[in-house]
Amino acid sequence: MRFTAHINVMPHKELLDPQGKAVTGALHNLDLAGIQDVRIGKRISLQLEASDEATARTMAEEACRKLLANPVMETFEFSIAAS
Amino acid sequence: MRFTAHINVMPHKELLDPQGKAVTGALHNLDLAGIQDVRIGKRISLQLEASDEATARTMAEEACRKLLANPVMETFEFSIAAS
Repeated sequence: MRFTAHINVMPHKELLDPQGKAVTGALHNLDLAGIQDVRIGKRISLQLEASDEATARTMAEEACRKLLANPVMETFEFSIAAS
Repeated sequence: MRFTAHINVMPHKELLDPQGKAVTGALHNLDLAGIQDVRIGKRISLQLEASDEATARTMAEEACRKLLANPVMETFEFSIAAS
């Protein structure tokens, strides 16, 4: 079966996010002063070939742990749907 | 009122995504051969101060159009929730 996974990798809440800070400043310069607390992470979509949803979930989690997210600085979450 | 926006910015489907291609290869080297079609974009979360949800939506859309997404190469979608 074929599944689609959407993965969000975000910087830890406790950590500074310099890229987000820079974007907050740039948005204020564009007259969007009501925007605060910008945090920038990664959004990853991928296709999985697996026998069932549980296997697909395990594969996605393994991909996150081994490659896509850095557990020291980032958290991840994902959703899986049959495609 | 305070709103939280979650924005996904992804490369256009028609465009090659070299970073996604590289990650697909790396995942195969990690014995995750069932994973295909990796595409990598940005996930942005931010806080908005706006009088109502419609205004918050307009602000988020403006932020995407003016700064966060490059319409030539990327598409964006977002969700807004009171926080």
